[in-house]
Amino acid sequence: MQSWSPSASISTLITLSTLSKKKPSGSHETIPLELIAEARSKGYNSVCLPLTTEDWHKRWTEMCLVPSDSVQKRTRESRRESKLVNRDLTSERKAEAWRENPCFERDEVTITKLDEAENVTAIISEWLELDAEEDGIRYDAEIALQQELAYASYLNIHTAILPAPRNRDHISSYARTVKACLSSAPYMNLAIRLPVYDTSILEPTIALSPSGSPSSFKTPSAPSTPRLVVSGSDTTLIKLSPSAAPLEAHIDAAWETWDLIRSICDYNIRLTLALDLTPPLPNSPGVLSKWAAEAVRYIFLPSSTFIANAKGYPVLPKPTQTFIRDSMVHRPNIIISGASSGLHKRGGEDAYSQYVKHLERTSPVVQAAEKVGTVENFAQGYQDYLQAPLQPLMDNLQSITYQTFEQDPVKYQSYELAIHKALVEWPKQETIVICVAGAGRGPLVARSLSAIKQSKKENVCLYAIEKNPNAFVTLQNRQRTEWEDRVRLLFGDMRVIEMPEKVDILVSELLGSFGDNELSPECLDGAMRFLKPQGISIPSSYTAHLAPLSSSKLYNEARAIKEEKGLETPYVVMFQAVNLLSGEGPGISGLCGPQVQECWEFEHPRKNPVLNGRGLPPTNSHNTRSAKLRFHIPHAGVLHGLAGYFEAILYGNIGLSIHPQRKDQISKDMLSWFPLFFPFKEPLYLPSNSELQVTIWRLTNERQVWYEWHAEAFLGFVSTPFAGTTSPTTSGQPLPPVNLMTSPTIGVPSPLIDAVDLLPRSSISVHDTPERTTARLVKIGHTSLHNPGGRSSWIGL
Amino acid sequence: MQSWSPSASISTLITLSTLSKKKPSGSHETIPLELIAEARSKGYNSVCLPLTTEDWHKRWTEMCLVPSDSVQKRTRESRRESKLVNRDLTSERKAEAWRENPCFERDEVTITKLDEAENVTAIISEWLELDAEEDGIRYDAEIALQQELAYASYLNIHTAILPAPRNRDHISSYARTVKACLSSAPYMNLAIRLPVYDTSILEPTIALSPSGSPSSFKTPSAPSTPRLVVSGSDTTLIKLSPSAAPLEAHIDAAWETWDLIRSICDYNIRLTLALDLTPPLPNSPGVLSKWAAEAVRYIFLPSSTFIANAKGYPVLPKPTQTFIRDSMVHRPNIIISGASSGLHKRGGEDAYSQYVKHLERTSPVVQAAEKVGTVENFAQGYQDYLQAPLQPLMDNLQSITYQTFEQDPVKYQSYELAIHKALVEWPKQETIVICVAGAGRGPLVARSLSAIKQSKKENVCLYAIEKNPNAFVTLQNRQRTEWEDRVRLLFGDMRVIEMPEKVDILVSELLGSFGDNELSPECLDGAMRFLKPQGISIPSSYTAHLAPLSSSKLYNEARAIKEEKGLETPYVVMFQAVNLLSGEGPGISGLCGPQVQECWEFEHPRKNPVLNGRGLPPTNSHNTRSAKLRFHIPHAGVLHGLAGYFEAILYGNIGLSIHPQRKDQISKDMLSWFPLFFPFKEPLYLPSNSELQVTIWRLTNERQVWYEWHAEAFLGFVSTPFAGTTSPTTSGQPLPPVNLMTSPTIGVPSPLIDAVDLLPRSSISVHDTPERTTARLVKIGHTSLHNPGGRSSWIGL
Repeated sequence: MQSWSPSASISTLITLSTLSKKKPSGSHETIPLELIAEARSKGYNSVCLPLTTEDWHKRWTEMCLVPSDSVQKRTRESRRESKLVNRDLTSERKAEAWRENPCFERDEVTITKLDEAENVTAIISEWLELDAEEDGIRYDAEIALQQELAYASYLNIHTAILPAPRNRDHISSYARTVKACLSSAPYMNLAIRLPVYDTSILEPTIALSPSGSPSSFKTPSAPSTPRLVVSGSDTTLIKLSPSAAPLEAHIDAAWETWDLIRSICDYNIRLTLALDLTPPLPNSPGVLSKWAAEAVRYIFLPSSTFIANAKGYPVLPKPTQTFIRDSMVHRPNIIISGASSGLHKRGGEDAYSQYVKHLERTSPVVQAAEKVGTVENFAQGYQDYLQAPLQPLMDNLQSITYQTFEQDPVKYQSYELAIHKALVEWPKQETIVICVAGAGRGPLVARSLSAIKQSKKENVCLYAIEKNPNAFVTLQNRQRTEWEDRVRLLFGDMRVIEMPEKVDILVSELLGSFGDNELSPECLDGAMRFLKPQGISIPSSYTAHLAPLSSSKLYNEARAIKEEKGLETPYVVMFQAVNLLSGEGPGISGLCGPQVQECWEFEHPRKNPVLNGRGLPPTNSHNTRSAKLRFHIPHAGVLHGLAGYFEAILYGNIGLSIHPQRKDQISKDMLSWFPLFFPFKEPLYLPSNSELQVTIWRLTNERQVWYEWHAEAFLGFVSTPFAGTTSPTTSGQPLPPVNLMTSPTIGVPSPLIDAVDLLPRSSISVHDTPERTTARLVKIGHTSLHNPGGRSSWIGL
Repeated sequence: MQSWSPSASISTLITLSTLSKKKPSGSHETIPLELIAEARSKGYNSVCLPLTTEDWHKRWTEMCLVPSDSVQKRTRESRRESKLVNRDLTSERKAEAWRENPCFERDEVTITKLDEAENVTAIISEWLELDAEEDGIRYDAEIALQQELAYASYLNIHTAILPAPRNRDHISSYARTVKACLSSAPYMNLAIRLPVYDTSILEPTIALSPSGSPSSFKTPSAPSTPRLVVSGSDTTLIKLSPSAAPLEAHIDAAWETWDLIRSICDYNIRLTLALDLTPPLPNSPGVLSKWAAEAVRYIFLPSSTFIANAKGYPVLPKPTQTFIRDSMVHRPNIIISGASSGLHKRGGEDAYSQYVKHLERTSPVVQAAEKVGTVENFAQGYQDYLQAPLQPLMDNLQSITYQTFEQDPVKYQSYELAIHKALVEWPKQETIVICVAGAGRGPLVARSLSAIKQSKKENVCLYAIEKNPNAFVTLQNRQRTEWEDRVRLLFGDMRVIEMPEKVDILVSELLGSFGDNELSPECLDGAMRFLKPQGISIPSSYTAHLAPLSSSKLYNEARAIKEEKGLETPYVVMFQAVNLLSGEGPGISGLCGPQVQECWEFEHPRKNPVLNGRGLPPTNSHNTRSAKLRFHIPHAGVLHGLAGYFEAILYGNIGLSIHPQRKDQISKDMLSWFPLFFPFKEPLYLPSNSELQVTIWRLTNERQVWYEWHAEAFLGFVSTPFAGTTSPTTSGQPLPPVNLMTSPTIGVPSPLIDAVDLLPRSSISVHDTPERTTARLVKIGHTSLHNPGGRSSWIGL
């Protein structure tokens, strides 16, 4: 549990060039100390500093790289040969001596003292190619990285920012190295610098990797965005002209890079992201929402990303504004660079950080957290924190728990309205009997009394049943002091208690985050014994809803629970750093539903129940449920679990809902329920435009109720007849779009969306006879099923 | 370790019809006992018997299914409604009573006594729809299944065969039920009956599921193959005409069903397959090879699968013959049914089992195992058994270990030839010095002496170095008794020993299954100190090779190892129940290599080494290696690990190889090395026609050498321009095939292969300008990296 820190922190980036140009003023012992003091006086929270100098770059290059003059004329093979055979053995001797004892010389590092390093984030040498094409260069880059991290550790630096990955073909090597560093520097946090996208990664680039290209030996004096260059012969594979590869694909590719690195590093919590916002962002927020689910600790924001507003002050483009506002969920450290370069005419150096603070203040997540009465404000400190769901049937709740839930201003208001409406609409008769089943400390009793009064009905008789002996004392006290003879209290379990008479309206509040997960169906089965044949239950029905969810935070939280079967039970969670992976249907099969889908429903009273002599159902089999849901996954992501919600009809059109798209219409600012999180043991990778099929079961035996859940992922393919058999009817005709399914709900995709579409549905030549064109879902993975955890609910009496 | 049982066992299937028609002869107490005795007298090893009768089917149907007369006119929705509302409450009351206390009546089961159940495999009611469309039917089928298994357990039956899955849409429910049964019947083995393929699963079937169709209520009196029918509305998704969906796709679909079930059951070793060979098999063995990696415990073989040969005797079609011969790796129980029905004129009932025994005798795996001198014969009892690789540098081997390896007739013969050839080709000089580095108990010393004698060279001086003090005693003994002064023995580690003179030919046998995995490179680095500048090393080079492998057996073996990091270290394994997943390239990217691919090479002596004052390399960095390999995966499978092999050049054209495709040409019947198995922690699902990219690293620090490995899976997509932009140049023209890559090695696919191809490459309309057509690999998954395990090799002195 962490509470909201009022501000994102802001850092300034001190470059090598600044370090070298700064004249000593004498007020501080060293140049770095002087610059750090300057940054502090300007209001920055911290400083980012390159750890090494050009001297180190020069020595490493001379030792570990092929002499640059002989490179460009050679192929990759002969370069490797040249390293082994032709190169100067002196360099290799120096390199071997260094590999044996990696050690800096004084002028190769920027700082040497503990006070220079205080509050500093170290930037590791950006020219280190951890994903170089050549084994030898990668190996030496790894030794250098370990050396730099060891030096940073020595100076008590806590976080280092690693050079951006550049080469998709060797990202697994990059990741393996990072994993090794996480293990050899056990107190260091590592942040991967990653441009939010890089158009070069999918291009048939002819750029040599820095190991071969002398031009890239220069360390950029200003922090340029590292580009992902694809080197080597394998780039022939990917031939996308920029127009055919829209930004979305590049953004997905950048995320895929991150996903591979953190997966290989097994979601180490010391591994975070330094997202580089240098490239302009697209105006389609969906594709960027995946970063909400990732560990974005730093955001690079060079002054060149800012544009001038009408008055000449630096502001950010709209999509970047939105993204930074949304990123406040991560409480990021925003690293501003080049603020003193005078790029914008107005506002001076302060203008950049002032603007970022403005974005923070106007961020929806910050605003919601600060506004009293919202669930976000109520939930401060509980974001992304796993709580075991309450089991009020098995456990007798504490008074403090009741008190928390009684604070909800919306829920009880809705109950009162529902009771009032039911009373008013009830056909005339002598006496109306209302019963609150599970009265707790009495909030529904009070609301019932208020509704009765409002309804102006005279002969209403109110019962209140409670099985928690401790709460029953509170009820008695309230009866004595508030309610007197307007309510009759009964102590006992609603499933067995003998009632003096049958009731017309049965009021209960047994709902959990997923509707039925606190055993409302089982309890009400018992209470139905004393409901009249045409009697009303409030709630009258409720539904459970699911959506696939990604969150590296929740994945780590869930597996950190060391209890047996910690990943086999759902949790109550106030979601924050999460991303719902599903889009609105119909997806590749044409059969997908909306982003959040309904699983099942419970109704009270049941129709035509089979009951035993005591008025109870002989078995609980009628309360089993299952659902198979199909979700369209528009953008690549990793499935970590399922988000569970409920919606209930209390009476008529009065309801309660935590469904993310409907709650504000039905019960805005209701506080009582956070969603449910069903974790998966193993994350499941989902490509863009895939389909996720989720099965969930509500199961029961004679003593317990539990859920199990399972997911399978599919991609779609169109199988078409062999070219030689193409029907002549389509020749010379515009090609008709493939009718993938019978579903009429497939919209015509926009050219932009279509270009990243995996199904080339618009450009396939087909027969007129639909039988000859076929669509298949191809399975690409699944996650394991989950069995009853240690916390299944008990229904036994 | 299990040794080869000489015969697959053969069972006969006793049907309900046989049970009911059999007249009691009085020689046995009951009809089942009589039939079982009869089967035994006919030579069958065991008997398969349905556990329940038609009476049970009738009662369950009446209790749990909707009356059949009202079904066919209703939609699925209204059927559900009808169950809830309209149906007879009497049935529901009976059903509830049964659910509360599931219990058979006497006439509902076929057997009641322990001696009737002895050696019997029970067939569970085939009409149980564990994957029915309706929740309620599935739930009741699960109760019935649990009831039948409990009864079988009571009778001490050890294996039950479950009804085949029928409904792809609810296989996860089927699997969940099986998992529940494995846990509630902890001593019972469950075999899933599975037709090797079923064409109906991909068809737009209008067949109602048995729950709705009165015709399917009849239990087939002969064991018909259960068909996978797709019921419900979702079948609109899949519309494949039989011609467009070849057998391969159906076989893949059947395997996918099995994969999902056993994955959900977490590879439980009590869960096996009863593969039903009723459908005729295709003549393309590749698609069936995946079953080699699965737990095929039973094979159903109805007499109707047999065809008559020229003389009228029953024989099997060629593909079925091949498949059964290959299936002998599983030592299956083959269940013959209908043998007494007189379907074939000649041979009588015996002919079927005699023929199966003939297939077994002529099975390559049985023949290889029985032939003395083959590695298969040598390896009896070690198939699929994980052994920790030897670490002869760290551990001093036992005499028995040396003795095992000295039995190899091929390896030492090759060494002798290589030494002889090197001697003969050595330029003339006064004395030739040979040194055996790591002489062990002396086999290479003996071979060297023999080669020297053969070469007729006079002045040859032979040294033998050994660091194992125990083996050194054996060497001294052999010197005294055999070799006398023809060899000089030196005790010590080749990396530090001081040699009296430099040598011309250095002979060593330090190779492991993966070439360098027993630290041959590191040891020979030390021995190079005393090799003359132009001297010869035998071996002169060696390479490591990998292929992706599937084996549920090995996966279970590896994770059963409870040592820390049991899945993070490679094992030596004699592969048997495995399947190599890779095909020959070029795959979807056009860049894939062959089925088994080379990772890296080591050469001795090295070129231009940097050495310290003691003649040793200052660091071991030159012995790091990495490889990134691309494999084409033609058929869907699950990746469980990597198979590792080596190939070595001893001298000139004399080599050693365990490369599966090359070993027989290079060193046939060599016994010394089984392959290496690199396990993955998490299985990775690979769809048909996917690409697997494997990265493997050989890593080192100052003390250790280890491997890490990682895999990523991709599918290929063709992105094409939007329909509206189609170039007019292709209109009215035959559509050109898409040029996916620049690689010229893509063959023209046959119509058959093309039809299951995921890339509809032949039927996509494209521009003439190749820039406008683009191919992408889309990532679909990866497995986690593996870090140094507990058993990395130590190189420290």
